[in-house]
Amino acid sequence: MRHLLSISELERADIERIVEQAARFAEVSDREIKKVPALRGRMVLNLFYEASTRTRSSFELAAKRLSADVVNFASGGSSVEKGESLKDTVLTLGAHKPDAIVIRTPWVGAAALVAGWTGAAIVNAGDGKHEHPTQALLDVYTLRQKLGALDGASIWIVGDVAHSRVARSNILAFSRMGANVTVAGPPTLIPREIGALGCEVRFSLDEIAQADVVYALRMQHERMSEAWVPSLREYAAAFQINRRRVSARQLVMHPGPVNRGVELSGEVVDSPRTLITAQVQAGVVVRMAVLYELLSGARTFSPVPEPQLA
Amino acid sequence: MRHLLSISELERADIERIVEQAARFAEVSDREIKKVPALRGRMVLNLFYEASTRTRSSFELAAKRLSADVVNFASGGSSVEKGESLKDTVLTLGAHKPDAIVIRTPWVGAAALVAGWTGAAIVNAGDGKHEHPTQALLDVYTLRQKLGALDGASIWIVGDVAHSRVARSNILAFSRMGANVTVAGPPTLIPREIGALGCEVRFSLDEIAQADVVYALRMQHERMSEAWVPSLREYAAAFQINRRRVSARQLVMHPGPVNRGVELSGEVVDSPRTLITAQVQAGVVVRMAVLYELLSGARTFSPVPEPQLA
Amino acid sequence: MRHLLSISELERADIERIVEQAARFAEVSDREIKKVPALRGRMVLNLFYEASTRTRSSFELAAKRLSADVVNFASGGSSVEKGESLKDTVLTLGAHKPDAIVIRTPWVGAAALVAGWTGAAIVNAGDGKHEHPTQALLDVYTLRQKLGALDGASIWIVGDVAHSRVARSNILAFSRMGANVTVAGPPTLIPREIGALGCEVRFSLDEIAQADVVYALRMQHERMSEAWVPSLREYAAAFQINRRRVSARQLVMHPGPVNRGVELSGEVVDSPRTLITAQVQAGVVVRMAVLYELLSGARTFSPVPEPQLA
Repeated sequence: MRHLLSISELERADIERIVEQAARFAEVSDREIKKVPALRGRMVLNLFYEASTRTRSSFELAAKRLSADVVNFASGGSSVEKGESLKDTVLTLGAHKPDAIVIRTPWVGAAALVAGWTGAAIVNAGDGKHEHPTQALLDVYTLRQKLGALDGASIWIVGDVAHSRVARSNILAFSRMGANVTVAGPPTLIPREIGALGCEVRFSLDEIAQADVVYALRMQHERMSEAWVPSLREYAAAFQINRRRVSARQLVMHPGPVNRGVELSGEVVDSPRTLITAQVQAGVVVRMAVLYELLSGARTFSPVPEPQLA
Repeated sequence: MRHLLSISELERADIERIVEQAARFAEVSDREIKKVPALRGRMVLNLFYEASTRTRSSFELAAKRLSADVVNFASGGSSVEKGESLKDTVLTLGAHKPDAIVIRTPWVGAAALVAGWTGAAIVNAGDGKHEHPTQALLDVYTLRQKLGALDGASIWIVGDVAHSRVARSNILAFSRMGANVTVAGPPTLIPREIGALGCEVRFSLDEIAQADVVYALRMQHERMSEAWVPSLREYAAAFQINRRRVSARQLVMHPGPVNRGVELSGEVVDSPRTLITAQVQAGVVVRMAVLYELLSGARTFSPVPEPQLA
Repeated sequence: MRHLLSISELERADIERIVEQAARFAEVSDREIKKVPALRGRMVLNLFYEASTRTRSSFELAAKRLSADVVNFASGGSSVEKGESLKDTVLTLGAHKPDAIVIRTPWVGAAALVAGWTGAAIVNAGDGKHEHPTQALLDVYTLRQKLGALDGASIWIVGDVAHSRVARSNILAFSRMGANVTVAGPPTLIPREIGALGCEVRFSLDEIAQADVVYALRMQHERMSEAWVPSLREYAAAFQINRRRVSARQLVMHPGPVNRGVELSGEVVDSPRTLITAQVQAGVVVRMAVLYELLSGARTFSPVPEPQLA
C-alpha cells in the first residue's frame, strides 16, 4: 500500500491486516506513556479544507503517539484564501517532503489527484461525497471487537445515504468483511444506483428488527434548506433510531457528531449498546495502524515496536 | 487533588504547595534547555470556547516544558460550529484518553460538569463569570515573590467586579492567604452579595492610599454598549489607576490584556512598580505546577525532576 | 547576528555563511529521520498578523527539524482581536522567554521595533512593504545551487515592485552577491526612488532576452480595485512571463503563491526551468540555518551536529 484513497481498492486481507495492527496499538493507549517511537522523525501534514474536530484530532493524536511530527493546515488563514489552486498548494507543501499528507476536501476524487502530485503517502480523510476510508476501517475494527467477526451479520445503514461518504465507504468495507448490508432512508436521500455497491435498499424501517447493527448517519441541517426532506421533525418521525425502533439486542453506531433528537434519540445516544465512544477510541488506533502501514517502509510490518520512550 | 475547578475548593496549604512547586519550576525557565521530562508521554488537551492569547499559550508552554504533548481545540473550525453539544464534544475528546483537559467556556459551572464526563484531570481556565483559578494562583505567586507573604496586606481590586471571574477567584485566594481584600467600582459593577466572599466594598477610590496592592480589572468594551457605565471616559475619570491615584509605594497588577488609558494610564502600565510582566511569567510556572500536581500521579510530589534532557 | 531584520544589515559574508550552512542542512531533509537535536529545548514563537501558508509552515518545519518547540500565534482568536497593541502583545509573549520570535505584520518597521521590546532573537518574516529577508536568502540559495555564483548574472524582477517586500529584499541581496539587477513593470508600480537600491529600471519587457534569471512578483488582486493597473488582462498582456517572452535558457522564479495566467503563464509555472519548487524546498533549509545562526549561541557555528536522533 502506497496510499489509502478508498475502500474500493482494498482486499479483505488488507482490511484484516490493518485492524489487527490497530488492535496491537490499542494497548499503547492504555499505558501511562502513550507513545512509541515507531515513526520518530517522520512528518505528517494535516491538510483540511473542511471543518473537523474528530478526524483531524484523531489523526494528530495517532501521529503523535507514533512520535511523528505533525503540521496542521486549515484552509482558513492560508494561501487557499488568496485563491491558490489545490494543485499549487499541494506542490508547495509537497516541496517540504512530508512523509504523509492527510487530506480532507469537499471535492470528489481530490485525494486521488493529490496522490499524483507529491511523493508523500496520501490518506483520504474525506473527499466530498465519495469516500472516508479510515472511518470505515475504524467501524470494522469496532464491530470486530464486539462481534468477533462480521461474516453473516446484518448491518443497516440509515439516513442520508446520498450525501454521505461514510455510507459509501462503509457499504464497501462491511460487505467485503462478509456482512449483509441494507441501506434505508427516504427515497430522496437514497441514490438510485447504490445497490451496485452490494447492498439492499429499504425506504422504511419496518423490518429493522432483523438488523444486528444499526448505523445511523448524521442528518446535515443544510439538507433541509435544500428541500431534500420536508423538516427534521418529519425525518425523525420516520427514520429516527430510538427505543421504539431498536431493541437492547441491537448495536447502534454513528460517525458523529450526533444531532441528538434527530437521527438518534438522546436515550439511544447514552445507551451502553451504542458504540459511539468505542468508535472514537478506535479512530486513533486504526489511524496509527494506517500511518504505520504506509510509513514504516522496509521495516517488517507485524511486530509492535518495543515500548521504549520516545 | 483530582481537578482544579475553583479556588473555593482549595485550602491555604494547597495554594502554598502549588506556588512553592512553581518556584522550583521557575529556574527551568531560565535554563538554556527550558524543559524537564516530568510529564513525557502525557497528553494535555486545550479546549477553548473563547478567544485567548495569554491563557492558552501559557498552558501550552507549561505542558511543553514538562515534555507533555499538547493538542489544541478552538471552537472555530470544529464540530462545535456544527452545533454539537459541549457534552458530546467532551465525550468525543475524552475517548482519546487525554491525561488533562484545560477548558475555557462562557458558561458558569461548565468545567465542573466536564469533570464528571471523562477520566481526565480538568483544569478550569475560565467558566463564564464564575472562576479562573490559575489566574488567582499566579497572582498569589507573583505577590509572594514581591512581598514574602500576603498576611495582613491590603489588596484593592478595582473595576468591573460583576462580570469578572478573575475578581471572584482572586478575592477568595488573597483572603485565604491572609490578605485584607477590598473591591471598588461603580455600584452598577459591584454585585450586592460580593461581601459574602470575605471582602469590603467601596464605591470610590477616595481611600485607595491605604492599599498595598492595587489590582485593576479589564474594562470590557461590551459593557458600554450594555449601558453598565455611561462611557469609558466617565469610567476612567472615576476609577482609572494613574499616578494621581497611586503612589510609587503601591504595587499595581492587572490580568491583561490592558486597555491603556482606560483602567490603567499608560504611565502606570510602563512603571517598574507594575507587575504585569511578572504575572505573565508566573503564569507558565504556576501552570506547570498545577499540571504536575494533577498528572504526576503516584510519584512523590515535592522533588523537582533532575534536569535531564527531554 | 542577534536578529534578522533586513537584508540591508547583512554583509556579503553573512549571506554566504547562512546559505552555506543551509546547504549542510539540506542533507537532513533527505534522511529518513528528518531531525537533528541542534536546538532541543529552545522555544520559537510564530507571531503572524497576516495570513500565510508558505512562510509560517516553512519556519515551523525548520524549527521542528532542529528539535525546537514551536508555538503558533495568529491574530485571529487572540487578544489582538480584543484591541491589544502590538507592544503589549509582544511584552506578554516575551514574558514567556521565547528564544526566537518569527514575526509577520502589515506594518513597515514592526520587526525592528519588536527587537527592542524582548530578549528574544527576532526574525522578520515580512513587515508591510518593507522587507522579507528570509525570502531573499532562500532565493540566493536557490540560484547558487543552479548557477554556482551570482556574480555578473543578470536578474530581472518583474511586476508590482512598489508594494513588494520581496522585491526590496531581493534587490539588496542579489546586488550584494554580485548580480546585476533590473526591475521592470508599469510606471505606476515602480517607485521613483527604487534605483537608489542599486538596480536599473525598465517599463517594458522589450529587452528581457538579456536576463539570465526572471523573477516574477505576485500580482495582488487588491491592486486592481485600487486602480494601480487597469485590469489583470492588460497587466498580463504587457508583463506576463510566458513562452513568447522567455526562452528555455532563462531561469524563472516566483515567491508564491502564483496567480496562474496572470504574472506567469501555466506553461511557465509547470516548466522544469522554473524554480518555484526548489525555492520552497530552500525555504526550510535556509530558515534552519537562520534559526541555528541566531540560537546556537556560544557553540561553534560551522559544524553540522552529528545526526543523533532527537
